[in-house]
Amino acid sequence: MPESRQKASSPINLAHKATLIEYQWSLRVIAEMDDYQFKVVRIEGEFIWHSHPETDEAFLVLDGTLRIDLQEGCVHVNPGELYVVLRGVTHRTAAQSEAKLMMIEPRGILNTG
Amino acid sequence: MPESRQKASSPINLAHKATLIEYQWSLRVIAEMDDYQFKVVRIEGEFIWHSHPETDEAFLVLDGTLRIDLQEGCVHVNPGELYVVLRGVTHRTAAQSEAKLMMIEPRGILNTG
Repeated sequence: MPESRQKASSPINLAHKATLIEYQWSLRVIAEMDDYQFKVVRIEGEFIWHSHPETDEAFLVLDGTLRIDLQEGCVHVNPGELYVVLRGVTHRTAAQSEAKLMMIEPRGILNTG
Repeated sequence: MPESRQKASSPINLAHKATLIEYQWSLRVIAEMDDYQFKVVRIEGEFIWHSHPETDEAFLVLDGTLRIDLQEGCVHVNPGELYVVLRGVTHRTAAQSEAKLMMIEPRGILNTG
């Protein structure tokens, strides 16, 4: 079996990638790891309540404050902080003023937040 | 089927978690997402050359500069930057002075870097 090689490509600057997104709530895939995708997004306002029965979902805040509403309360996630919403948990992402985030979820998941 | 609930627990501050690690190169699991683990680590010096035949491996730098040596060259990863080493690719992590990182890899992977 031939050995795998990888070109020494540039690392991905998350904050910079987030500035390249044209519209709020529009997800941009910036990297992949196995079957998962790293996506950046700029959000403002409130998304819809929803859940992902098949997967957990990770949020890393790059700029601003992300509010994650859960039925049990809400969580404020600030830059440099990570939060994982567990599979099947109804939640809603929100931001009072614009926030930039990285999300990690499996490839092919429906874009519901 | 009962609906899944989740307590509105505190988000995880990555830089703070990295300061809690007692020894360099000692990985600390700070969160999980599906079958993957988020780990923080403080490194300095050079690790051994190795590869993971079964998984990609993601690195997010929190503080300092991570150098990832590949057979095709090396990559310098700075705070706020992400780099994914593909499965099967021989690599070596290094840092000239201490760097703090978050790594993402599947649960149960051997701690070889």
